[in-house]
Amino acid sequence: MSNIISRSELRHDPIQKRWVIIAADRSRRPDGFARPGRAEEDSAPCPFCPGNEEMTPPEVVALREGGGEPNGPGWSVRVVSNKYPALRIEGELTRRGVGMYDQVSGVGAHEVLIESPDHGRTVDELSLEQCSLIYSTLQERLIDLMRDERFKYVLLFKNHGASAGATLPHPHHQVIATPVTPKTVASELNSARLHYLGKERCLFCDIIAQETEGGERIVSMTDRFIAFAPYASRSPFELFVAPRFHQHSLTEASPDDIRGLAEIMKDLLGRIRAGLDGTPYNYVIHNAPNTETKPRRPSYWATIRHDYHWHIEIVPRTTQTAGFEWGTGFYINPTPPEEAAEYLRGIDPGGSDSDEEGA
Amino acid sequence: MSNIISRSELRHDPIQKRWVIIAADRSRRPDGFARPGRAEEDSAPCPFCPGNEEMTPPEVVALREGGGEPNGPGWSVRVVSNKYPALRIEGELTRRGVGMYDQVSGVGAHEVLIESPDHGRTVDELSLEQCSLIYSTLQERLIDLMRDERFKYVLLFKNHGASAGATLPHPHHQVIATPVTPKTVASELNSARLHYLGKERCLFCDIIAQETEGGERIVSMTDRFIAFAPYASRSPFELFVAPRFHQHSLTEASPDDIRGLAEIMKDLLGRIRAGLDGTPYNYVIHNAPNTETKPRRPSYWATIRHDYHWHIEIVPRTTQTAGFEWGTGFYINPTPPEEAAEYLRGIDPGGSDSDEEGA
Repeated sequence: MSNIISRSELRHDPIQKRWVIIAADRSRRPDGFARPGRAEEDSAPCPFCPGNEEMTPPEVVALREGGGEPNGPGWSVRVVSNKYPALRIEGELTRRGVGMYDQVSGVGAHEVLIESPDHGRTVDELSLEQCSLIYSTLQERLIDLMRDERFKYVLLFKNHGASAGATLPHPHHQVIATPVTPKTVASELNSARLHYLGKERCLFCDIIAQETEGGERIVSMTDRFIAFAPYASRSPFELFVAPRFHQHSLTEASPDDIRGLAEIMKDLLGRIRAGLDGTPYNYVIHNAPNTETKPRRPSYWATIRHDYHWHIEIVPRTTQTAGFEWGTGFYINPTPPEEAAEYLRGIDPGGSDSDEEGA
Repeated sequence: MSNIISRSELRHDPIQKRWVIIAADRSRRPDGFARPGRAEEDSAPCPFCPGNEEMTPPEVVALREGGGEPNGPGWSVRVVSNKYPALRIEGELTRRGVGMYDQVSGVGAHEVLIESPDHGRTVDELSLEQCSLIYSTLQERLIDLMRDERFKYVLLFKNHGASAGATLPHPHHQVIATPVTPKTVASELNSARLHYLGKERCLFCDIIAQETEGGERIVSMTDRFIAFAPYASRSPFELFVAPRFHQHSLTEASPDDIRGLAEIMKDLLGRIRAGLDGTPYNYVIHNAPNTETKPRRPSYWATIRHDYHWHIEIVPRTTQTAGFEWGTGFYINPTPPEEAAEYLRGIDPGGSDSDEEGA
């Protein structure tokens, strides 16, 4: 087992400046690959359901308002380590050159947040209270993992539906802490910093101001959050969600902000379910890198509280991404975002909870 | 029809600095989306088969060694405009700001290269002569489209298999000329230029030298070409193919180079078919941007003949890309490239033609 663990590593591509996790222990044989759309057999017991707690690795944290033992039932939200982690918490962080390439040891964290005891309901179908617990627990994990000096970034994301990459149907989020900054985040930071250096304004605040003024791409807006179809959407019904006020990291969100986030996410995911025929989706929380530890290049991060603005990208999987898009970073989107937004605005988000929805 | 045409446009994302084609006429209604894996009904006549030439737009170019009329049978390779083009050749190239966003008119070319009259065979199953015709015709289209001053870049790619985005089963390549440079290419150019400025050596030549020396990631090598699993492969069995000598653009390839390209591509795609159970794949030819027209920023392109090196990325679709990878540019690959290369080296590429294969 230990020599398998030691094989997980991060590698850097010198052409695209992109990090890849080579996680050799997840699936090594050519016939062992996940085929598109493959999910666990329905007949197997669900490791995320109450009563099956012993099927998962021990819990990292769980909410038990009514009390109860760890790793037993009675929880409302439960976080466990991923059974097949891409990165492992144990081990020393090493960085070395391999000829002209770069390698970092596969140190990190890979956790699963089980959204509720309910096997069949996710964010838009759960109560506003339950969703607020989901997001406040994500925030807690973020703050906790950022205390670890080895971790540069914490990825928070959700895959919904087998064809969107969810291998277990019980609704869950994933948390991955990495010792490197993902390329897309690095790109965003650069754009935001250049904008701030030139204008002393946040790039994202400027975009939100322009979208609010125009309004044609807005899908939902509350007192605290805005959701719109981005001007240069890569795929149909892609959505961008952000606080309307400047906030660089989800770590800064107040309990009222968290409740506002739960409210707009319920609204948006309800519209996707009702309007797009329950299409699978992914969302990724784009957060500032770890600013809690001593940064290695202080000047680089000096303005991050001013120039970065956390947000969420929701991508419904309505179209297959063809290979040339993967190879070029160049996308063809058949649905103008103005039409996507108009369509989703007209959808009743429904859901099982009767909380107020945004304008 | 004309007001639909006018709606196609390129939009620039100010956060990711990424271009997107908003091609509103390809599929506008929420219920009109391509679902993953959807392909044309098998019962419908194939528009790419001989005798059905009237089902495609008029041909751009076709090889008819035995003579014959345009848009009739008797061709060996045929290039036609895409019936549902993402960009259109007619119209003026305009660039304008939309508030803080950027827009370029949807001018470009979108062509389909039909590989042979044979409905059921692609590169690895066709003769070396036929494959050489495919690649020399792609080269011709590249040279011809680069004569158009409006086009900054010409994308050459192939989707093989419905789940890799091929909507028609008759084997074909696609050609898209765009008035902008794709983000991934721009990234590569930047990396290559920085490397060259520091070392006066080509980044890609250096990588090829290191891979040749190590050898553990090489899948196939001929006198002219090398194919290896990249050190930081994003997905299992990803392959990188390049000329072993420095050449910045496919436009520079000699007839012998083209024949060598056909030879190694037949070998590699044969190994993927035989070793990976006919898994769908995509490949993209990464070529230098258009250097034939007067560049707008001459200093930027001054060294491109020295620092860029054309190559091909082949991506078998063995795993589903989950959403977080799309959202972060950060990949988890369960198969170390050294193991992928070892496995593919052991595969007999087979194929219907008896040409020599690489070492």
